[in-house]
Amino acid sequence: MARLVEKILCILFSLLVIASCSVSPVHSRKFKPSEPCKRIVLYYHDILFNGTNVANATSAKAANKTNLGDFKFGMLVVFDDPMTKDHHLLSPPVARAQGFYFYDMKTTYNAWFAYTLLFNSTEHKGTLNIMGADMMDQETRDLSVVGGTGDFFMARGIATFQTDTFQGADYFRVQMDIKLYECY
Amino acid sequence: MARLVEKILCILFSLLVIASCSVSPVHSRKFKPSEPCKRIVLYYHDILFNGTNVANATSAKAANKTNLGDFKFGMLVVFDDPMTKDHHLLSPPVARAQGFYFYDMKTTYNAWFAYTLLFNSTEHKGTLNIMGADMMDQETRDLSVVGGTGDFFMARGIATFQTDTFQGADYFRVQMDIKLYECY
Amino acid sequence: MARLVEKILCILFSLLVIASCSVSPVHSRKFKPSEPCKRIVLYYHDILFNGTNVANATSAKAANKTNLGDFKFGMLVVFDDPMTKDHHLLSPPVARAQGFYFYDMKTTYNAWFAYTLLFNSTEHKGTLNIMGADMMDQETRDLSVVGGTGDFFMARGIATFQTDTFQGADYFRVQMDIKLYECY
Repeated sequence: MARLVEKILCILFSLLVIASCSVSPVHSRKFKPSEPCKRIVLYYHDILFNGTNVANATSAKAANKTNLGDFKFGMLVVFDDPMTKDHHLLSPPVARAQGFYFYDMKTTYNAWFAYTLLFNSTEHKGTLNIMGADMMDQETRDLSVVGGTGDFFMARGIATFQTDTFQGADYFRVQMDIKLYECY
Repeated sequence: MARLVEKILCILFSLLVIASCSVSPVHSRKFKPSEPCKRIVLYYHDILFNGTNVANATSAKAANKTNLGDFKFGMLVVFDDPMTKDHHLLSPPVARAQGFYFYDMKTTYNAWFAYTLLFNSTEHKGTLNIMGADMMDQETRDLSVVGGTGDFFMARGIATFQTDTFQGADYFRVQMDIKLYECY
Repeated sequence: MARLVEKILCILFSLLVIASCSVSPVHSRKFKPSEPCKRIVLYYHDILFNGTNVANATSAKAANKTNLGDFKFGMLVVFDDPMTKDHHLLSPPVARAQGFYFYDMKTTYNAWFAYTLLFNSTEHKGTLNIMGADMMDQETRDLSVVGGTGDFFMARGIATFQTDTFQGADYFRVQMDIKLYECY
C-alpha cells in the first residue's frame, strides 16, 4: 500500500515537472510591454541646416520637398544629432543619433525615421538600430528597435517618440523612450 | 523485485521528462515557413505624382533617376499608399503603407523598399516595419518584417511581394502576403 | 529503509530535472558573440558612377552632398554592388548587395547603410537584410542583420565592416564579416 502511494507520488511529481517544462520555454518567449529588460529615456535634438548655421546645424536636407500637398512631402533630412538625458540642448550628449527622416503625408506633417543610436560612454558602448513611422499628430508613437551591437548585442524592442518642442523649421526635440525586450 | 521494477520505471520516466525538456525549447524556436502564427494578405496601390494629379497621387519622387542605365537607377520615391483587402483601388483601405522605394539596377527594373504598415481599425491597431529587395523580374520575392508595435508588438516575419498590375509610370499594384512567425 | 532511500533518490532526480528544465530555455536564447550559427565573409566593391563609366559603375548619387561641412554630408548613393569571396573586384560574385548609403558627419567621413545581400548560387539562395552606422574612422564597426529570407529564413545577426581599400572618390572595398546568431 505504502509502495503504491509512493509510486503515485513519484508519477504526479514527474507530471508536474513535465507541465513546468512545457510551459517554461513558451513563457521565456513572452515579452510583456510593461516589462522591458532594459530602458533608456533620451532626448533627440535636431537643428536643421539653413545655409548659414554650419556651426550649430546637426542635420541637412538631402532632398527637397515636392509639390504634393503643403506638408513637405518627400523632403529627406540626413542627421547626426546629439542625444541628452534631459531637455537641454547643451547638456552633455550621452549618445548620437545618425540616420535620416523624410516627410510623407499630403494632409498633415508626418515622418518616417531610420537611424542608429551610437553609445560610446563609460555607461554604454554599442549601437541600437531603429526604424518606423513617426505619426506626428499622435501624442506618442512606437517605432521598432530592430537590432543592436556591442553592449546591446542582438537587442530588439520599441522606441516610443513624444514630441517635446517645435521651434519653427529650425529646431525640434523628441523624447525617445527606448525599451528593450530582448537582452543578451 | 516489485520495488526494483518501480524504481526503474520512475527513472525511465524521469529520463523521458529530461528528453522532452531539452527538446522543447529548441522546438519552440523552430519557425516553419508554412506555419505562420499570423497571416494578412493585402494589396498595395501606388499612384505617382506627375505634377498635376495632387488629389489622386499617393507618392512622389524625392530624388530623380540618374543616367546610370535605362531603368531609373537612383530614382527615390516617398509614399503614403492605401492597402486594401482586394484588388480594387477604391476599396476601403484597411492599412496605410508609409515609406520609400528606389530603383537600383542598370539592366532591368529592380527596387528596394523600407516602409511601415499602419493599422488603425477595429481588427488591428499597430504597425509592422518591413525592408528588403524587390527583385521585380521574379514572380514572387521575400522581404523581411523586422519589427512590430501595438497588436503586432515585437513581431517578425516575411512579406512576400507579387506584382498584380503595372499601368505605365503612374500606377502599380502589389500583393503583399504578410506572414508573421514571431507573435506575442 | 530501502524504500525511503529510493523515494529520496527519485525526488532528488526529479529536482535535477526541474533545474535543468528551467535553465535550458534561457540558455537556448543566450547568443554568444563568438559562437555564430553561420558565418560568411565577403568583400563589397563599390564603383561610383562619374558620368562616363556606365559600363563599370555599380552605384550612383541619388542626392548630392550639402554644404554642411566638408565631408559630403547628405550625399546619398544607391548601389547594386558585387560581393566576392576574396579581395579581387573581378572574382566571380557570390552575392549582390543592393541598397543605399549616405554620408552623415560634418567633421569626418562617416556613413549609414541599409541594404540587402542577395544570394543565388548553388551554395546559398535567399537574402539578408542589414542596416546600421558605418563609423569609418573606427577599424571595425558592427551593423545589424535584421532579417533574412530563403536559406536565411528569419535570420538575425551582426555584419562587421572593415575598410579594405579606398581609391579616390571612385572605388572602395569593404570586408563584410556576416555572423548569424539566429538560424532556422
